[in-house]
Amino acid sequence: MNALDEKIARLLRDSGLTLSLAESCSGGLIAKRITDIPGSSGYFLLGAVTYSNDAKERVLGVPAKLIEQYGAVSGEVALAMAEGVRKVSGSDIALATTGIAGPEGGSPEKPVGTVYLAIATPEGGNTFLQHFAGDRSAVREATAEAALRLLKKRILKS
Amino acid sequence: MNALDEKIARLLRDSGLTLSLAESCSGGLIAKRITDIPGSSGYFLLGAVTYSNDAKERVLGVPAKLIEQYGAVSGEVALAMAEGVRKVSGSDIALATTGIAGPEGGSPEKPVGTVYLAIATPEGGNTFLQHFAGDRSAVREATAEAALRLLKKRILKS
Repeated sequence: MNALDEKIARLLRDSGLTLSLAESCSGGLIAKRITDIPGSSGYFLLGAVTYSNDAKERVLGVPAKLIEQYGAVSGEVALAMAEGVRKVSGSDIALATTGIAGPEGGSPEKPVGTVYLAIATPEGGNTFLQHFAGDRSAVREATAEAALRLLKKRILKS
Repeated sequence: MNALDEKIARLLRDSGLTLSLAESCSGGLIAKRITDIPGSSGYFLLGAVTYSNDAKERVLGVPAKLIEQYGAVSGEVALAMAEGVRKVSGSDIALATTGIAGPEGGSPEKPVGTVYLAIATPEGGNTFLQHFAGDRSAVREATAEAALRLLKKRILKS
């Protein structure tokens, strides 16, 4: 438990907003941090760790065509993941991550450390592209931290 | 990364078996440990962190009646979660956890630390009841560890 996670827990509790997650490259790290906090069952509805394209399509309803056209690691797919998990869970807010944690899977266009974040709310959605340095573990931790900071900012604005 | 997690990764890689997870009380901890390992995208299809009853029903197809009759923390629901995520993901093996990590939610019949684990394979499914001592963090860690040990044993037997 750290200060950011406790702050988010307090914001969600106080606002009555509910949360869902669709994690690819962060692999459950965000769900772990959210559920580290006692009482998180009051606002955390669903976390989906969708590593495979098939899971992104079947569980989150991401169109196969979108993955084909843009790749699983893209802003378009990140946003579709966030919107998909928001719909499936019925949550107010949804966060999604997709990226290349490495050590394999990088390319000149999308090197290891390339991560797309997305957030979906009743007002619409946004995506963000980030490049994180470091090894697999560092990229995963940085992804979770950036996603949670984004979540905090968005709740404070709402 | 620890020895058990690396052993499981090697067993899954070598056997060609695929895995999915339905986590309630372990809240993404098992998904995190599985995806800590590079190359886990080769066998890890889907992790569902289903805290709410609604998510258990909508995402995993757990019958509402089962939750009503036995409670969300029960062997019956654990097994339905494992079978549900196995079906949704199309994986060979599925693990599920449901329990009371605390500090709230305990009762005389089901005190804090009560955890049901389930595993589903093409040969059928099993559930296990465990009582773990300690605080929320300890119960969550013990749940993940027990589930992964169960997984290892089952792959070695298959």
